[in-house]
Amino acid sequence: MDEDKVMVIFQPSGQRGEVPKGTNIIEASRLLGVDIEALCGEKKVCGKCIVRIEEGHFEKYGITSSTTHVSPWLEEEDKFITPDLKEKGFRLGCVAAIEDDILVFVPEESRAGKQVVSKAARDIHIDHNPAVRVYSVEVSPPTFEEPTGDFERVCRGLERDYGLENLTIDIFTLRRLPDALREGNWTVTVSVWNDKEVIRVRPGKVEQAYGIAIDVGTTTVAGYMCDLQTMEVLETVSMMNPQCKYGEDVMARITYHMMNEDGLKRMSDDIIEGINELIEKAVASTYPPKKKKKKKKGEKGPAEYVEVPEEGKTYLRLIREDIEDITIGFNTAMHHIFLSLNPEYVGLAPFPPAIHHSMDIKARDLGVNVNPSTYLFVLPIEAGFVGADNVGVLIAEEPYKHEENQLIIDIGTNGELVLGNRHKLISSSCATGPALEGAQLAFGMRAAPGAIERIEIDPETKEVDYKVIGREAWRKFSEPEEMKAKGICGSGILDVLAELYRANIILKSGVFNKKGLKDHPRFRKNPDTKQPEFILAWANESSIDKDIVITQKDIRQIQLAKGALYAGCKLMVERMGLDKVDTVKIAGAFGTHVDREKALIMGLFPDCEIEKIKGVGNAAGDGCRAALLNATKRVEANWCSRNVEYIELTVEKNFQQEFMEAMQLPHMTDEFPHLEGIVPDDILKQ
Amino acid sequence: MDEDKVMVIFQPSGQRGEVPKGTNIIEASRLLGVDIEALCGEKKVCGKCIVRIEEGHFEKYGITSSTTHVSPWLEEEDKFITPDLKEKGFRLGCVAAIEDDILVFVPEESRAGKQVVSKAARDIHIDHNPAVRVYSVEVSPPTFEEPTGDFERVCRGLERDYGLENLTIDIFTLRRLPDALREGNWTVTVSVWNDKEVIRVRPGKVEQAYGIAIDVGTTTVAGYMCDLQTMEVLETVSMMNPQCKYGEDVMARITYHMMNEDGLKRMSDDIIEGINELIEKAVASTYPPKKKKKKKKGEKGPAEYVEVPEEGKTYLRLIREDIEDITIGFNTAMHHIFLSLNPEYVGLAPFPPAIHHSMDIKARDLGVNVNPSTYLFVLPIEAGFVGADNVGVLIAEEPYKHEENQLIIDIGTNGELVLGNRHKLISSSCATGPALEGAQLAFGMRAAPGAIERIEIDPETKEVDYKVIGREAWRKFSEPEEMKAKGICGSGILDVLAELYRANIILKSGVFNKKGLKDHPRFRKNPDTKQPEFILAWANESSIDKDIVITQKDIRQIQLAKGALYAGCKLMVERMGLDKVDTVKIAGAFGTHVDREKALIMGLFPDCEIEKIKGVGNAAGDGCRAALLNATKRVEANWCSRNVEYIELTVEKNFQQEFMEAMQLPHMTDEFPHLEGIVPDDILKQ
Repeated sequence: MDEDKVMVIFQPSGQRGEVPKGTNIIEASRLLGVDIEALCGEKKVCGKCIVRIEEGHFEKYGITSSTTHVSPWLEEEDKFITPDLKEKGFRLGCVAAIEDDILVFVPEESRAGKQVVSKAARDIHIDHNPAVRVYSVEVSPPTFEEPTGDFERVCRGLERDYGLENLTIDIFTLRRLPDALREGNWTVTVSVWNDKEVIRVRPGKVEQAYGIAIDVGTTTVAGYMCDLQTMEVLETVSMMNPQCKYGEDVMARITYHMMNEDGLKRMSDDIIEGINELIEKAVASTYPPKKKKKKKKGEKGPAEYVEVPEEGKTYLRLIREDIEDITIGFNTAMHHIFLSLNPEYVGLAPFPPAIHHSMDIKARDLGVNVNPSTYLFVLPIEAGFVGADNVGVLIAEEPYKHEENQLIIDIGTNGELVLGNRHKLISSSCATGPALEGAQLAFGMRAAPGAIERIEIDPETKEVDYKVIGREAWRKFSEPEEMKAKGICGSGILDVLAELYRANIILKSGVFNKKGLKDHPRFRKNPDTKQPEFILAWANESSIDKDIVITQKDIRQIQLAKGALYAGCKLMVERMGLDKVDTVKIAGAFGTHVDREKALIMGLFPDCEIEKIKGVGNAAGDGCRAALLNATKRVEANWCSRNVEYIELTVEKNFQQEFMEAMQLPHMTDEFPHLEGIVPDDILKQ
Repeated sequence: MDEDKVMVIFQPSGQRGEVPKGTNIIEASRLLGVDIEALCGEKKVCGKCIVRIEEGHFEKYGITSSTTHVSPWLEEEDKFITPDLKEKGFRLGCVAAIEDDILVFVPEESRAGKQVVSKAARDIHIDHNPAVRVYSVEVSPPTFEEPTGDFERVCRGLERDYGLENLTIDIFTLRRLPDALREGNWTVTVSVWNDKEVIRVRPGKVEQAYGIAIDVGTTTVAGYMCDLQTMEVLETVSMMNPQCKYGEDVMARITYHMMNEDGLKRMSDDIIEGINELIEKAVASTYPPKKKKKKKKGEKGPAEYVEVPEEGKTYLRLIREDIEDITIGFNTAMHHIFLSLNPEYVGLAPFPPAIHHSMDIKARDLGVNVNPSTYLFVLPIEAGFVGADNVGVLIAEEPYKHEENQLIIDIGTNGELVLGNRHKLISSSCATGPALEGAQLAFGMRAAPGAIERIEIDPETKEVDYKVIGREAWRKFSEPEEMKAKGICGSGILDVLAELYRANIILKSGVFNKKGLKDHPRFRKNPDTKQPEFILAWANESSIDKDIVITQKDIRQIQLAKGALYAGCKLMVERMGLDKVDTVKIAGAFGTHVDREKALIMGLFPDCEIEKIKGVGNAAGDGCRAALLNATKRVEANWCSRNVEYIELTVEKNFQQEFMEAMQLPHMTDEFPHLEGIVPDDILKQ
């Protein structure tokens, strides 16, 4: 390593590289293509670029990071960083100059260019049937003639007014009952879980009740805070999964557990702490109203409407205790780690999970800080590689209620596939890797400003035109410096592959057409890796002062992903005895932005009428929300988890053959007989 | 206060008094009539007299106690007191000399003269139907064709082998399942609670399962550790209720809560810590076998049989995690404090409890350290002053299964009464105070060696003959110094009252017959209190170098107790429309030792055939044990708690009248027409 250079690794993105000693963190982030918010332009006055310097030796990267590896604390930082956070290693990125190797964690708040594809809740139909309902009841006070105890007195009222019978009460809630009854002058509002157990009691008559549906992805965690009465989504919150620091994919995290005695505990603690922060964020969002008002210390109480006279408005103010129900879904490995279940066996063939069935667990038993008697409904698991997230997709999309055969594809780090209809459903998973999401490519990035999302390559000149997120005009209508390109996001990946192939830059096998590219200025061998690469955008068009390239390895990654996905889908269709599927639904960010024609042409999944291909957004999150607002969906979820037949594709005898074939690129110069009548002619012939 | 004297208060007995400065704690305990074990005669070699010096200001006694108020630590103490305990204020009583006011806590282990009336388990019939049952099951390992998850795999086996369906599993137990299955080579033993929930999993085939039934009295806590398979009581353990330091009766403790912000938490924490110690004691008793073998550090594992070669025997060794079920009963105030429920309203008319119904609470939610998924079954409550302990008595005695009318009396600090048969049961409570148990009398004490348990007074000379526990011979056959009298225990109380009356020392009203006693050497005015008192044993016959007396106040206390009890019983009999009851059952230590004839003659309870009066021992504890070993008893308990009609006697219009009349002593010199045919003639006329 160059003596005057130091290694910097940014988390959670995993971007790393050497920078000159003395470079400040903001500068380093730019050099390495990491987004850190820096509104004031490094004038040390906005306090937006707060990052955390990690302490410790990081085997994976071969570096030791320390807070002493950056320049000393400056007075200006006191204004933005509390002594508490200072203690934890937080610094202003524009102040701290890098003197030795460091690993920097960029908190979500400091990340610039928030992901454009939000995990917003879709407007799907959900019947109103929440597991937690509130009932107000008035009772007569006890007398010598009628000295019945508080709980039985309330139960009698609940049976009389609402027909509720055989209720129990959680001990933590019972502790509130005697005082609540007297404070409310013998009128109380109780929250009842599944018409069985009283989980909250408040004095007087109250109508509000709230819950949160949480979708834990390997990389992102999203929460939907809902009004259990009106079903409205009050707030959508998201954050990076804090476990990213233990590895980018589930296998890496399972390995982390196996290699570290306290690995499971650390990862479990981190995700629970993360979920607590997420809930705090959701709750805090209700008050002060969107950063307009500062919350006074000690000014807390259960949900209530607060007047803000200067605005002439009334806002709802919540506290953590107002969260009375939680539903949560994740893939199987995340599920196990969250619940502190040994995830080892989920990573070993035949990948059996510890449990399939949903679980109702007291939030307090997991350390989730909400109303102490609240239950967490943990969505059930289908199989080792088809988790509760897929069950969420199923109960949101309900293929089991339709006659038509649906193929539902959820592309994350792992591809999860479901195929079938009301008569039969099968599921499987395929190791697509994260390439289709833009990750792990040399210049892959999230769908954020500066990400190349569309591309066109002239087959003659092999000149590249492209469009980045955050700018309407294409490259050819812009000055180079206006482009500020930074990388390629998931929705640009397919374009790149298709255009490279159409322009004869890569061959059917995916290998660069070295002969045809000879001496072309955009084609070169990387001086460091000696790998061939093709330049999509020149350094002067980029915001990171680097040529943005696609490498041979990148192309392989995309081919592998596409091959795995296609082979998986094809084998499932065969297994079901079908010729073709009626509908293809693509969940996740990829589905929202994918170019359906290109996907069909490049052979990502089996043929289907083009207008029958639909992006269904964050369907896993929608499923969690459906389970939150409609208890019947919980029953459906368990039905799905045990009645969708899981097929392990890698052991199918045709798998390797299909996979190898599907990795090839289609004969683009030929006609597309297989797509006739599926994709409009003018698209095929263009 | 005399400058050369210091105040010493002993807990939990509450005995207090001044002693000369420099007195050691053992000596002080003797002066004040407190029993501390001191086998070696203060030679500092037996280490039996360990006590704890409390730190703090004790408002109730107007003293400040500190560990610095005793003489410095001596080397000899290191042998018996660990640095940890030293830190907590523990000292050897024979070493520590008192230099200033102190409050000393005497741990159960250091108390001499263990209570003779043990809370031993009676041999009552209980059907074997435990709530927790163990099932061993063997399953096939997962394959690609059959990759079902661990829990569902085990459930399938449990349904196949035992017909168990719809089981759930506690999250803490699920965490053990994957490894246990593999350790046991796909055979595991699961413990199932109420055929519903899996609460423990162990690798391989195991048959043992254990539980503990706990009876929490205001003063004493008893635990019965049982084998859930054989129903055998493996160990009976008991301890003082650590809450005694907050007050001797329930009202004092309720008041402590009302006067101290953290009072409830402190009392609750103390009883839970106490119960944890009790469980530890029960578990430890299984190994090493009775102090014969020292347990090696780290030598722990689930229940197993351990060979002790030198004895040629095999012993069962348990750990806390082997406790898989707990049942627990207490009076209503103790119930509320244990569960951290505000006990305030239980102390205020009309005394409604927070809940009547039994509760199934995870031991971990209360901080009880056993197998983490274990449930505590909290027995239900009848009313504010008739608690779960009475329900325990009911399910042990089962009056609701018989045609005959039973009157069940449980005499503790509070008298609890139940009357009825299979058609109807009513209950009530009466404020007997603790006098009948020997407490709160000037020389009242527990039924321990030195306690006067029988007495006879010559009506002519008014000379007293008596017998103490621990010595067969009566006073008149002994030398004075052989008697070592120390006080009067509960079973001696009725004798004293009857003999004082028969000897014309007290009148019908209970007042001392001052005229008849004029100048009698045993009758005097106490020089301090100016109250009249009668000497039962002279200082030279006592082990505390004091005259043992009965005071006018003592007699009033006994009269009040007897009056309250009799009036309560009588009004209940009237309420039921009965002339007399068929059976009287007396629970508690008092019932075991009471002289049935004297009780009838003195009018403690309504008339009944003398052979139909039975002591039923610690029936409350028996009820807890029945609920532990037979789940059906839990259903019966809830039935009792809601179907036994509670009657508040103090508001009955005749109560005051009946109470006043019942406080009088009967016409002993007359005949006993009311007892004709009930008590044999020779007894009445003797």
